[in-house]
Amino acid sequence: MVRLRVDLGYDGTAFSGWARQPERRTVQGELELALSRVLRVPELRTVCAGRTDAGVHARGQVAHCDVPEPAWQDCAARGAGYPLQRLARALPPDIRVTALGVAPDGFDARWSASGRRYAYRISDDPVGPDPLQRTYAWHRTAARGSRLDVTAMNEAARALLGEHDFAAYCKRRQGASTVRTLRELRWRRAQDGFEAGLVVAEVAADAFCHSMVRSLVGALVRVGAGTADVDYPAGLLAGGVRRLEPAPPHGLSLESVAYPPDADLAAAAVRARRVRGPLA
Amino acid sequence: MVRLRVDLGYDGTAFSGWARQPERRTVQGELELALSRVLRVPELRTVCAGRTDAGVHARGQVAHCDVPEPAWQDCAARGAGYPLQRLARALPPDIRVTALGVAPDGFDARWSASGRRYAYRISDDPVGPDPLQRTYAWHRTAARGSRLDVTAMNEAARALLGEHDFAAYCKRRQGASTVRTLRELRWRRAQDGFEAGLVVAEVAADAFCHSMVRSLVGALVRVGAGTADVDYPAGLLAGGVRRLEPAPPHGLSLESVAYPPDADLAAAAVRARRVRGPLA
Repeated sequence: MVRLRVDLGYDGTAFSGWARQPERRTVQGELELALSRVLRVPELRTVCAGRTDAGVHARGQVAHCDVPEPAWQDCAARGAGYPLQRLARALPPDIRVTALGVAPDGFDARWSASGRRYAYRISDDPVGPDPLQRTYAWHRTAARGSRLDVTAMNEAARALLGEHDFAAYCKRRQGASTVRTLRELRWRRAQDGFEAGLVVAEVAADAFCHSMVRSLVGALVRVGAGTADVDYPAGLLAGGVRRLEPAPPHGLSLESVAYPPDADLAAAAVRARRVRGPLA
Repeated sequence: MVRLRVDLGYDGTAFSGWARQPERRTVQGELELALSRVLRVPELRTVCAGRTDAGVHARGQVAHCDVPEPAWQDCAARGAGYPLQRLARALPPDIRVTALGVAPDGFDARWSASGRRYAYRISDDPVGPDPLQRTYAWHRTAARGSRLDVTAMNEAARALLGEHDFAAYCKRRQGASTVRTLRELRWRRAQDGFEAGLVVAEVAADAFCHSMVRSLVGALVRVGAGTADVDYPAGLLAGGVRRLEPAPPHGLSLESVAYPPDADLAAAAVRARRVRGPLA
């Protein structure tokens, strides 16, 4: 067997999320179908770094796929760029594979990952979102259609940084830890191009538990809208009980996944499995 | 009668263009229906600054609409923001009205306009467009999937600036002049946000004739792809004969329309009508 690394992005609108499900259109399902077709191996299976929910987008998802060595060799022998081009043509237009190749020794898309970075985009325009932004931005204003207070949202966010038990912001899974290290959570009002006018959060952590980014956004937006105090999100964290509606999925995008240097891959995977438990 | 100015944007994907047509979904048709419903006046009619083709987007379209004064007064009396909010709710999510109010004396959305600005967006990524950009970017690479030469495209574009007869770049309409003043045509590789990686043209003129921006892009992209020399677009212009496929509509967006100061509106409209002829 040879392990392949697949880098990809997708428009999550028309998918029931990453994870393969019977009778549903999923990113994993479409990707595995295309890989099986291109490599002529039935029922190939993939593992990804961040299992995005229904409606969530990705611009920097990473997955791996174990393939019988002769099948990969047959495909790769047809030219350096051939496997990637062939895979691109086998995928629907709402998925794009940007890189495909043999992974370094010890690489595991999920367990080797040392960090994930998400973005959450909000349109707080009183008259609604730009039609060309409505696919990837949540429309949310403050009271009486006024703008969100980005300064207050950043002040509230600072209290959440660092290592904490994020149980209050996670859909609980049995046996899995909800301790995570939030490395960055910063809001800015974008100035240029197709993000212009949007309020954008950059959110980075070692890993996220289920619905964590959207729950953090849900709490912080209440601060920005003036319906909760600046210390409300940190209070929820300390309380440890989940009682918050997460922000809608279409504002969220997995932007990138970080991995350690090749020499440290195997050690990183073992460490992550131990720290985050069997299901995280 | 009172003349209203309507500022709007739209995702052109699901429209058969701006211009109302029987049995087709058009921006003008949807806008007029919504205005008629909100103001309770049957069959209101609108005029716009730039009649975009099927599939073309807009972020800064401007239109006007003549409305019986009592109908406007009834609606406006319900609060300063009421007409705009009510109209926003009456429109589908792929159209957004950003401003609505009484136009200054002598204002004509089409004939008063002193300039139009379009953007054209291209993804020249060898592996295809980012799925979240595919709605508003044309996928076009150079030979063997390499990048476009933006420097060459800018050099070729400079020779087109100024006042010329753009017949070679226009779908001809009987009796209409094809003389236009191209004020800006500049390509850049965008760095940030959802435009990141795209090759974007900013194109500004007093006015454009039919399919002019897309025809200019079609010629310049051949230069960028290395299949035509840098002097090819200027040669076409001098030849005066149209023989070029315009670039596809979904890369194009009407970004903004400029108007002279209020005191000069009526004079500007008379001048534009005289210069550009009855149908331009």
